[in-house]
Amino acid sequence: MGTDDMDTKSLSSSLHRTSPYKVGVPPKQKLWKEFSSTLKETFFSDDPLRSFKDQSRSRKLVLGIQAVFPILEWARGYNLAKFKGDLIAGLTIASLCIPQDIGYAKLANLAPQYGLYSSFVPPLIYAFMGSSRDIAIGPVAVVSLLLGTMLQNEIDPITNAHDYLRLAFTATLFAGITQATLGILRLGFLIDFLSHAAIVGFMGGAAITIALQQLKGFLGIKKFTKNSDIISVMQSVFSSAHHGWNWQTIVIGATFLVFLLVAKHIGKKNKKYFWVAAIAPLISVILSTFFVYITRADEKGVQIVKHIEKGINSPSLDQIYFSGDYLLKGAKIGIVAGMVALTEAVAIGRTFAAMKDYQIDGNKEMVALGVMNIAGSMTSCYIATGSFSRSAVNFMAGCQTAVSNIVMSIVVLLTLLFITPLFEYTPNAILSSIIISAVISLIDYDAAILIWKIDKFDFVACMGAFFGVVFGSVEIGLLVAVSISFAKLLLQVTRPRTALLGKIPRTNVYRNILQYPEATKVPGVLIIRVDSAIYFSNSNYIRERLLRWLTDEDEQLKAAGLPEIQFLTVEMSPVTDIDTSGIHALEELYKSLQKRSLVLANPGPVVMDKLYASKLTNLIGEDKIFLTVADAIQTCSPKFAEDV
Amino acid sequence: MGTDDMDTKSLSSSLHRTSPYKVGVPPKQKLWKEFSSTLKETFFSDDPLRSFKDQSRSRKLVLGIQAVFPILEWARGYNLAKFKGDLIAGLTIASLCIPQDIGYAKLANLAPQYGLYSSFVPPLIYAFMGSSRDIAIGPVAVVSLLLGTMLQNEIDPITNAHDYLRLAFTATLFAGITQATLGILRLGFLIDFLSHAAIVGFMGGAAITIALQQLKGFLGIKKFTKNSDIISVMQSVFSSAHHGWNWQTIVIGATFLVFLLVAKHIGKKNKKYFWVAAIAPLISVILSTFFVYITRADEKGVQIVKHIEKGINSPSLDQIYFSGDYLLKGAKIGIVAGMVALTEAVAIGRTFAAMKDYQIDGNKEMVALGVMNIAGSMTSCYIATGSFSRSAVNFMAGCQTAVSNIVMSIVVLLTLLFITPLFEYTPNAILSSIIISAVISLIDYDAAILIWKIDKFDFVACMGAFFGVVFGSVEIGLLVAVSISFAKLLLQVTRPRTALLGKIPRTNVYRNILQYPEATKVPGVLIIRVDSAIYFSNSNYIRERLLRWLTDEDEQLKAAGLPEIQFLTVEMSPVTDIDTSGIHALEELYKSLQKRSLVLANPGPVVMDKLYASKLTNLIGEDKIFLTVADAIQTCSPKFAEDV
Repeated sequence: MGTDDMDTKSLSSSLHRTSPYKVGVPPKQKLWKEFSSTLKETFFSDDPLRSFKDQSRSRKLVLGIQAVFPILEWARGYNLAKFKGDLIAGLTIASLCIPQDIGYAKLANLAPQYGLYSSFVPPLIYAFMGSSRDIAIGPVAVVSLLLGTMLQNEIDPITNAHDYLRLAFTATLFAGITQATLGILRLGFLIDFLSHAAIVGFMGGAAITIALQQLKGFLGIKKFTKNSDIISVMQSVFSSAHHGWNWQTIVIGATFLVFLLVAKHIGKKNKKYFWVAAIAPLISVILSTFFVYITRADEKGVQIVKHIEKGINSPSLDQIYFSGDYLLKGAKIGIVAGMVALTEAVAIGRTFAAMKDYQIDGNKEMVALGVMNIAGSMTSCYIATGSFSRSAVNFMAGCQTAVSNIVMSIVVLLTLLFITPLFEYTPNAILSSIIISAVISLIDYDAAILIWKIDKFDFVACMGAFFGVVFGSVEIGLLVAVSISFAKLLLQVTRPRTALLGKIPRTNVYRNILQYPEATKVPGVLIIRVDSAIYFSNSNYIRERLLRWLTDEDEQLKAAGLPEIQFLTVEMSPVTDIDTSGIHALEELYKSLQKRSLVLANPGPVVMDKLYASKLTNLIGEDKIFLTVADAIQTCSPKFAEDV
Repeated sequence: MGTDDMDTKSLSSSLHRTSPYKVGVPPKQKLWKEFSSTLKETFFSDDPLRSFKDQSRSRKLVLGIQAVFPILEWARGYNLAKFKGDLIAGLTIASLCIPQDIGYAKLANLAPQYGLYSSFVPPLIYAFMGSSRDIAIGPVAVVSLLLGTMLQNEIDPITNAHDYLRLAFTATLFAGITQATLGILRLGFLIDFLSHAAIVGFMGGAAITIALQQLKGFLGIKKFTKNSDIISVMQSVFSSAHHGWNWQTIVIGATFLVFLLVAKHIGKKNKKYFWVAAIAPLISVILSTFFVYITRADEKGVQIVKHIEKGINSPSLDQIYFSGDYLLKGAKIGIVAGMVALTEAVAIGRTFAAMKDYQIDGNKEMVALGVMNIAGSMTSCYIATGSFSRSAVNFMAGCQTAVSNIVMSIVVLLTLLFITPLFEYTPNAILSSIIISAVISLIDYDAAILIWKIDKFDFVACMGAFFGVVFGSVEIGLLVAVSISFAKLLLQVTRPRTALLGKIPRTNVYRNILQYPEATKVPGVLIIRVDSAIYFSNSNYIRERLLRWLTDEDEQLKAAGLPEIQFLTVEMSPVTDIDTSGIHALEELYKSLQKRSLVLANPGPVVMDKLYASKLTNLIGEDKIFLTVADAIQTCSPKFAEDV
């Protein structure tokens, strides 16, 4: 039955005096057009090829190359003013990143120089391929912890350091491959499945875990647990209380920790003094190194860095596992760590892009990050991504483009070539203090309180992730976060809301009786509104729920001695779509009703099409399908419609 | 800010003359009440404890026992009339099931008696614990095929028959455990995730696979491929064409296949002759056995059953693998086969319950099926479930209760004890013909055509499952079916619809301009309706999509030389809920708009609550939130609102 028939035949019988407009039916889209537009919305929803429209062939080629290497585009508009901003920002984040890199490499159970390597090559590559102007690239605390935890489950980093390093490079390669693949296949929306609330909980838990692990360096303890959960860590701390705490270390660590926290506080209070917080770590390193050198505190039990390999990154392609057991293990670790790294970087990119009002293409960013990590794995780097704290400093220091990353990269290069011997006497305690002060800002309890106020289910996800990390491990916390996020989606698609409607007196409006106490139920008619599309995931539930509404109503009416329901009216305006299982469920509903009548009100155009295609309209009867609930009541219970 | 403030402060400013009703706010539900009602809707949506309300303690105990063993409930109302119906139905399905059981056991690569065992013990247990009055229990074609395929991937049934049998029992035990666990934990809704369309395709593909595999027995081929995909099978058939086809076998097989198909056709054409189709298989077996015995056709190359072990089931608890490699393999196979078996049984139960207008509890059914299979695994049975064809025959033969299953079970018992030697000369060809004629009804092309008409995506799922089974294997087809079903859900939660609205002239109604050509866009205002709740899974997409609507509109206006958009109005009536990621997205949207204004129209009560809780109302401005789109336009573009 064509749509024209529908316009005239079935609807003319339900024309209502006050709504002279028939329900419109959009022209039937050709199958190909419908398919291609769905494909476009799913994968190309941000219309990345917009600028390619109506251009000449050579221009398209140029645009294409510029899309892969955005630097070619913005480099042309580069001038001295921008360079000034980038230079200052680059120097600032370099001073922040050098001590952090050494510390984060320890989190990942790697020798300190690998952290510096990962601040040299990856930012350079990102500057050529990335689109964010404010992100600062390098190793980050949470990913370093995640990597360190997962890798040491496979290989012991102390007894088998060489294999451990090889596995780290393998994981980095696969992280890069995962990121680039997601970006190329435009599957970036998969990252969205880790909800904001879960990330807040996960980051907070990871921050606490990292801070607790720093107690080893902070207190000068030699024997420490490998586990990351809070119980094991506290056990290690207290069991070594008698003989393991080195008071000199604690003094150094505590002093500078206070210094760092005060500097951070000054930076927060007055935005103009952000640079105080930014250079404080480097100042601490310099002062403490000098102090230890002068007092020879390392002979009194203060543990020092001792040795950082001089020189730039060596190629490491030959060190990657391309076969054997470790290949699979490295791949698994790389995929997980890569996706967590992506989440951070994409979140940072989006935040700053919104603040400065420019667009970034999430999928393109992923390709840039992926290539950066693939190249990193071949040049002795481990997984690098965008860092919250460094990007914020970058932003406030006035960065203009990704050149700030190039500046930082060059400073790190100079450090690697010339300055590394100076770190020999740097106490581990100072690195621990720097890490503690860095991760404290990851604990966002304001966000957690807001989540509690807004959405309790989200809060459960947040707390689940938090406690999963703190009491279990980073992987368990991640698993809990993803599971709870999926459970919420499951709930959304399998248990949609339904509402019983009543008539608001002296109007033609029908509303939820729970929301509007004045709405009156219509005698003999049960009006239920279904608040979702009817798909296979919820069609059985909807059918059973509708029947249960009916049974409940019957019981109440029987107890009150009133006549039972004759008409079940389903208000279908929120039902945006229906599939074969949904049609099936409506059929079964109709058959279950037997003596009573099934009435449909306000079906959308897509739904009407499918009702006709499935011949359900013949089964139910075209005279039982109305444009509005008011029309339906007019026909089912005319006396009521007039009286009230 | 409390809901009372909201009632008076912000809404009074947007009271519209023709709608004197403020948007109602439901009373804030206590957290525990909200949580427990969500729990109830999710797991106990069919209110199974309804009858337990307001009952005495002893009565509750009785009801509880009756819930586990429904036989105690309906046995009291049993009378001679019902027994008459059940007797006839039981005898009819017994005559159908005996030849089918022998054939299906071969599908599962098991000796024929195991099929008969599985029609003896499981139906008895089901009769005590199940709730469906029409289902007929026993081995079925698709599950037998699935089991046979998956088991022979692990162990060769010819060279290592004993271990193969043990693995079959292990798989059956785990199938039963899976089914019972899903039922007890009320996770039955997980079965819904295999959509109706996917099942149609899967069953059709399995039917073709089974029919093709029968060519071995039908053509009398000795050497046959183990693979089930159509290419391998056709290769086997044609490569043995010269020397492997036994013409006597083909004659016997073809003759009786024609007979069976004709009998089936008679049964379909005239519902009164259904018994013709029902007893045709048994008649064929008797006639062909007699024929082979008389002519000693087995000496001329016609393969016969040869031997069916006499006697009833032996206990098999000691044969199940409780440790080692095979335990895990058996568990994996059992879980998959168990869930497929569940899908069939639940679908059958629901269909007949709807036709005869009684209720069955899906989760209770699963427990009954699970216990039945657990017991079966300990009594030499393999996975049994509800059979479409036998249940239909049961229904048409006039079954009244599950006693028909008990009658069938007793007939099978008698067969096992006394009649099995008579099957010695039954040709394999006749079993093949019976199976072919049985599975042909699984190919439901009417349903497939209907699916094509109704929902193209569903049709893709259907065809994907079909071709996956035919050209790959049963497991691949199942995987394809589940993946496509999940992809559809993914699409639903990540890419909701949005629509641009325009004003219908001379009314206050705003509708989709694609659907209503007469709707006029409002100059300077862009009205977009978002057709879904805004969760973390789609919040980024919605934000980007809204911005893209804006950009597209700007381009069009610029090209036409008209002034650009000043107000972005988001019509939020379909937005049933919003979470923290959604709030975040609205914030970022507001920031991206900068000079332009963000206006929200018609937010539901849940959404309003969260907008207040997150202080978004302060950010956007309470004067920018309206009850209806008409109110919003009144304020944003008053001139237009009056003119048109």
